Amino acid sequence: MNIKKIKEIVENNTSKAGRYFDLFIQSVIIFSLISFSFETLPELNSSVLEFFRIAEIISVFVFSIEYVLRIIVADKKLKFIFSFYGIIDLFAILPFYLSTGIDLRSLRIFRLFRLFRVFKVLRYNRAIRNFQLAFKEIKEELILFFIMTFFLLYISAVGIYYFENPAQPEVFKSVFHSLWWAVETFTTVGYGDICPVTVGGKVFSFFMLMLGLGIIAVPSGLIASALSKIFNKRENQE
Amino acid sequence: MNIKKIKEIVENNTSKAGRYFDLFIQSVIIFSLISFSFETLPELNSSVLEFFRIAEIISVFVFSIEYVLRIIVADKKLKFIFSFYGIIDLFAILPFYLSTGIDLRSLRIFRLFRLFRVFKVLRYNRAIRNFQLAFKEIKEELILFFIMTFFLLYISAVGIYYFENPAQPEVFKSVFHSLWWAVETFTTVGYGDICPVTVGGKVFSFFMLMLGLGIIAVPSGLIASALSKIFNKRENQE
Amino acid sequence: MNIKKIKEIVENNTSKAGRYFDLFIQSVIIFSLISFSFETLPELNSSVLEFFRIAEIISVFVFSIEYVLRIIVADKKLKFIFSFYGIIDLFAILPFYLSTGIDLRSLRIFRLFRLFRVFKVLRYNRAIRNFQLAFKEIKEELILFFIMTFFLLYISAVGIYYFENPAQPEVFKSVFHSLWWAVETFTTVGYGDICPVTVGGKVFSFFMLMLGLGIIAVPSGLIASALSKIFNKRENQE
Amino acid sequence: MNIKKIKEIVENNTSKAGRYFDLFIQSVIIFSLISFSFETLPELNSSVLEFFRIAEIISVFVFSIEYVLRIIVADKKLKFIFSFYGIIDLFAILPFYLSTGIDLRSLRIFRLFRLFRVFKVLRYNRAIRNFQLAFKEIKEELILFFIMTFFLLYISAVGIYYFENPAQPEVFKSVFHSLWWAVETFTTVGYGDICPVTVGGKVFSFFMLMLGLGIIAVPSGLIASALSKIFNKRENQE
Repeated sequence: MNIKKIKEIVENNTSKAGRYFDLFIQSVIIFSLISFSFETLPELNSSVLEFFRIAEIISVFVFSIEYVLRIIVADKKLKFIFSFYGIIDLFAILPFYLSTGIDLRSLRIFRLFRLFRVFKVLRYNRAIRNFQLAFKEIKEELILFFIMTFFLLYISAVGIYYFENPAQPEVFKSVFHSLWWAVETFTTVGYGDICPVTVGGKVFSFFMLMLGLGIIAVPSGLIASALSKIFNKRENQE
Repeated sequence: MNIKKIKEIVENNTSKAGRYFDLFIQSVIIFSLISFSFETLPELNSSVLEFFRIAEIISVFVFSIEYVLRIIVADKKLKFIFSFYGIIDLFAILPFYLSTGIDLRSLRIFRLFRLFRVFKVLRYNRAIRNFQLAFKEIKEELILFFIMTFFLLYISAVGIYYFENPAQPEVFKSVFHSLWWAVETFTTVGYGDICPVTVGGKVFSFFMLMLGLGIIAVPSGLIASALSKIFNKRENQE
Repeated sequence: MNIKKIKEIVENNTSKAGRYFDLFIQSVIIFSLISFSFETLPELNSSVLEFFRIAEIISVFVFSIEYVLRIIVADKKLKFIFSFYGIIDLFAILPFYLSTGIDLRSLRIFRLFRLFRVFKVLRYNRAIRNFQLAFKEIKEELILFFIMTFFLLYISAVGIYYFENPAQPEVFKSVFHSLWWAVETFTTVGYGDICPVTVGGKVFSFFMLMLGLGIIAVPSGLIASALSKIFNKRENQE
Repeated sequence: MNIKKIKEIVENNTSKAGRYFDLFIQSVIIFSLISFSFETLPELNSSVLEFFRIAEIISVFVFSIEYVLRIIVADKKLKFIFSFYGIIDLFAILPFYLSTGIDLRSLRIFRLFRLFRVFKVLRYNRAIRNFQLAFKEIKEELILFFIMTFFLLYISAVGIYYFENPAQPEVFKSVFHSLWWAVETFTTVGYGDICPVTVGGKVFSFFMLMLGLGIIAVPSGLIASALSKIFNKRENQE
């Protein structure tokens, strides 16, 4: 088997062999992520732990071979090694060989990006293209929205700090603690671990939330209008 | 009364008799669901329980007759028995006759699907059609959204596990417990039974939530643009 | 001052005198609502309570005169008395004269509807008209959405009841208690007074919430598309 | 260096020197806000506090020079002093010189508005223009929405007060306490510090939340339709 053929399998996912190779690698990624997740469960008995240890060895073995193959078939080897996927692929196997005290296997999560390729196989090109076009259309507006949101969060945090700090010095300890309150309030998550108790703090929250209601609505409005435009364009072209 | 006439009543809900038959069956379904719900209330006295027992017998009696009638009038009897509604109809009455230890009556909840037919009677065809067309239009985008959402949830769960597990080993026990946190956070439900306490965990949550704000906005954007397109099309046709 | 002139003032809010009359009545409504709200504050001293008692007498005095005037100027007196606003106006003063044990003054809240008239004075006709047209456009879809939402809530309630009742019999007492959980979960309020603790309940919640994310997005999608259509129509007409 | 040249630098941010001046001032604003935020952290040792004291002096020094320069170069000096930015700039330095008992430095937060100018430098004019046009388009509808929302909040507050006050007199103390419940419920924040426990209160909440689901969806619908219109208009002009 010459390099050209391996290249065909490893890099080209339109050929039949390439598609199977991709599916195999993706299956191992999912398998290794699932086994990694189960391994975090406390109170596992030794036989189950043994199973996970073997699963880990197999995964790393497959990933290592894949990594070596990708270097071999790459036209510009150094470019691949220092590319986004090249570094991720290295991070996915390195922790096993280094076996440092810190568990770096979670870095492997970035391998999830490899899973995105599955969409190509599933021919979801149109849907992906729509999202990309919509995102491109509203990129500037989205950035503006995030900056405005951060302003709103910061102003709210400083405001609530002045109202609540004297009443709850242990909860609203600093502007940063207040910022956490602002985050969980304006995203409407509201765990309840930190919330205003003074009249001033509640009235202030009320006005900021009214403003927030309008601001939180911006992204879906942006996405709707961008997608509408793209749908109309496509319609007209057909 | 010959079979053809019964068939007319049981299967055809455009005729007057068929409509009354449908409304009667739907009333019994709603009645049986309401009585089932009330039966779960604790501390009921014996006379009320007796009432529910009789309500149960009547419901099953009606459903049994309906089931038998539907088999009799079906052109392809086996096809009906193994069809979606055939199996649901059987599940609705079987638990009563089997009276196993486990309460399978909750399977009857699938009979709710039968209630969808009420829309046909109410002539809500246009609204149903709009939703169907909109769903068809954005099916691929919706699936992509759900996959992206699951990626976001999983990555957030692994991330928060590393930040919070050392501080709250009893709360963020494993990646699966963290996944529950991710679910209640990104849907913005936020019960507060599980939430980050470390600085790292809060900063990580902040960034993931900012990203999540944009992602959670996708479905309403998709629905808006799809419905806009359908409304425009209808407009142009008229 | 003859009846015709009074009629002009009381019923016609396009004339100058009528506008002042309207503004005066609206001010008294707002004043009486504010004073009613403050009266609910516990631990008020006697002088403040005395103030509220006088405010109450003045409000009822004004409302009574207004009610009598409206009957006098009405062409069909009985029709006005039994109309929506006629009954509300009576409910606003009746509790004072009857002074029953139960505090019925809260019925006066329906007088808020009278405040809607303020929009006419503010010339917000276009915005109101847009909302009315949008609502008319999507009425059937909205009803469908509410029915679908109720189905989702009921199915979720029954499902979670089976998962959580054995583990938390005091929290998930019955299907109705579970329904309250479903309401606060799918509206993403999430107080945290009732939430799943079992693995099954959490997995079930996860899947229902994923579905719920799509369903909760429907109203803003509907409103966006309806308003878009109306804006386009207006554009074309101009 | 004559005044004309200073004016060029201070007021004109299209020239190279003006842009650098703007960037420098913005950097000092951000630096002073960050140092102000860190200063609120409890348990700082004396050397860190000393650092913040110096940072404070430097910031005020820069802001003072900027303020004086802006007065000098202003054509109408009094007009600038009493303008929005003039007052904000004064508020940013005044607390330092007055050193009153109350910490007024938080007023400096309004200097954040100065940061908005950064967008001009970044050439985000199109995105800002889109938001401004969209806001102008739906201004009246948004005001109507806020008034409707306030009505919904007030009616819900009065309603829940009657259901929950007898059961939880310490939680639902008055209509104002209920209003806080209404705010955190209809914005779907749901901290859980205040929530209904009676059957009546829960059923009432259920119906109000169903209504609220529709109303909360209005802003994103409005924004989507306004942006769609603006995008279409731009498209047609090109």
